[in-house]
Amino acid sequence: MIDRVYAEELKRFVGEVFVHLDVPEDEAHIVADVLVAADLRGVDSHGVARLKRYVKGIRGGLILPWTHTTIVQETPTTALLDGGNGMGQVVGKRAMTLCIEKAQRVGAAFVSVRNSNHYGIAGYYAMMALPYDMIGISLTNARPLVVPTYGCKPILGTNPIAIAVPAGQERPFVLDMATSIIAHGKTEVAERQGEPLPPNVAVDAQGRPTRDAAWVRQHGGLLPLGGLRETGGHKGYGLSVAVDILSGVLSGANFSALITGEPGLKSVGHFFGALRIDAFRPVDEFKAMMDEMIRTLKESDKAAGHDRIYIHGEIEYEMEEERRSKGIPLDPRVLAYMREIAAELGLNPPVTFQSGGVSTR
Amino acid sequence: MIDRVYAEELKRFVGEVFVHLDVPEDEAHIVADVLVAADLRGVDSHGVARLKRYVKGIRGGLILPWTHTTIVQETPTTALLDGGNGMGQVVGKRAMTLCIEKAQRVGAAFVSVRNSNHYGIAGYYAMMALPYDMIGISLTNARPLVVPTYGCKPILGTNPIAIAVPAGQERPFVLDMATSIIAHGKTEVAERQGEPLPPNVAVDAQGRPTRDAAWVRQHGGLLPLGGLRETGGHKGYGLSVAVDILSGVLSGANFSALITGEPGLKSVGHFFGALRIDAFRPVDEFKAMMDEMIRTLKESDKAAGHDRIYIHGEIEYEMEEERRSKGIPLDPRVLAYMREIAAELGLNPPVTFQSGGVSTR
Repeated sequence: MIDRVYAEELKRFVGEVFVHLDVPEDEAHIVADVLVAADLRGVDSHGVARLKRYVKGIRGGLILPWTHTTIVQETPTTALLDGGNGMGQVVGKRAMTLCIEKAQRVGAAFVSVRNSNHYGIAGYYAMMALPYDMIGISLTNARPLVVPTYGCKPILGTNPIAIAVPAGQERPFVLDMATSIIAHGKTEVAERQGEPLPPNVAVDAQGRPTRDAAWVRQHGGLLPLGGLRETGGHKGYGLSVAVDILSGVLSGANFSALITGEPGLKSVGHFFGALRIDAFRPVDEFKAMMDEMIRTLKESDKAAGHDRIYIHGEIEYEMEEERRSKGIPLDPRVLAYMREIAAELGLNPPVTFQSGGVSTR
Repeated sequence: MIDRVYAEELKRFVGEVFVHLDVPEDEAHIVADVLVAADLRGVDSHGVARLKRYVKGIRGGLILPWTHTTIVQETPTTALLDGGNGMGQVVGKRAMTLCIEKAQRVGAAFVSVRNSNHYGIAGYYAMMALPYDMIGISLTNARPLVVPTYGCKPILGTNPIAIAVPAGQERPFVLDMATSIIAHGKTEVAERQGEPLPPNVAVDAQGRPTRDAAWVRQHGGLLPLGGLRETGGHKGYGLSVAVDILSGVLSGANFSALITGEPGLKSVGHFFGALRIDAFRPVDEFKAMMDEMIRTLKESDKAAGHDRIYIHGEIEYEMEEERRSKGIPLDPRVLAYMREIAAELGLNPPVTFQSGGVSTR
């Protein structure tokens, strides 16, 4: 049996925690919404499991509880936003909102962000473009965990790429991927379960492949998408650098190697984009072709031993449906922390219930 | 000993071939420049080795020798261009030129292209942005050769991504990568040399890993970047779909699965982007940070057995310097074809010379 919580109840609780830490109420709701969206979509490593780190960040003065964003520079199609070292989710939502507004006026727009913090799942912001019939893009750099090809020191972030594209009858295409083979959260899961990492996803201090989950969790050393050079790892390395350039260098935040977790200049940077589909062709024609493409992929011949081809975002949409109705399963340690912080702050802990049968990604 | 040719002589010859096939002189020069740029950079699969296919395409009526491009729709920041089923290189250069002009006026711009043909190396167009202190982006879809994760039928192109970013003292960052693990050209090389493919880069008709280069060259079955699902192949699959959406669906060209090589609706699509750096921050500050990032990567600790970390584009820039001075080495079959077509059209064949010591990528 496992403890579960309904999404709205979890949001209520997370929001109250942040309000108690001097986060303005509307901003606390944004942070809670982004975190619980990750749990709903099955990206447990980026949901309430991170509550403790955000609380520590605010209490330790690394993240400011109130988020004063400033537009440093702008053109009709671009902006540079300073996140004022506030909450990454609030910065991210404001930046993507600005990006969408600009794209509505001129067709396409980009907003680069400096002086921000960890913003949760990249896909959340890309998906904000969907109701406007736009293609949404969201990138961020992050603290160094990934080694460049032929290197052994982690100096690149897992620097994710998210792209969301609306379809018609079919669900939207939502790609949300770290540019490393596995996310750092996977090393925590493997360590907890006492399992080795899969082969060739990480390297040790000499740059040799290692499967030691505990070591990689602590020291980094993840390989970029593609793995070693022989299997195309230089391409994942290039994608990680490209994300770092758009998020960190274009904004002036800084590149991953210098992200230390200290506030100020060595800050996290993001990059957001929005493209209005009707700037290129009629939306209904575009969506009809998206549907046809998605069906062509899904109905295509399957490899031996497989009976389904997935479109990106599909597993997460199905997970969200399931978790909205059946509740979000909670890791015992995450629930214990929520009860502990509730007692400390004098809040009602999240109301949970028990049931079996957990789906995991 | 190997036959070599100087770049200018190779351009002269290739240009004359196209002029003889009714390609207008200025357009023939563009095609020759793009093809020889690939040879100079060491991407031999996309250079004059493809001359025969272009000649066949024009003679067979699949590609029109003259390129009438039309702007179907535009906003200040976007355009949809119809390539009129002309030469992909001419279409690509015009589209990227339009994109750069728009970005100069408004900060950032995107041009989607339909009804085009194979345009050569994606990086050529991305690099056009560099002298303007812009970040350049170039994507294209292509005929189906790649299988989706859990699939066994090739219904995605190798759909490349190219991003070019200027630096200061350091060379620009130029990422130019197929979203499959290996390019299709590598299967031709392996077949010619009688070598098996590396493990886990392609699958057979049942979706099981195969190393049979001849079979894959003929039938496709390349795995997306990341390989099988366990090593992140779903991410490369997602990148390939994203490129197909921006190039094929947004333009209305069509998605890779339907590219048959016939002219008209089932045409190749491209996507170009240009971002003015000074729309975000002062160019000199950006370039100084690019230099610092590049040096940090290059000076970072090396893995055991390696003494150098490369930046994307670096190997190609060095190759270009070498080949500009020492000449471009020619595959005997490529040279034989050039002599054959020269005799047929009454042209002077390319002047070659012999020398040893060929660098290959």
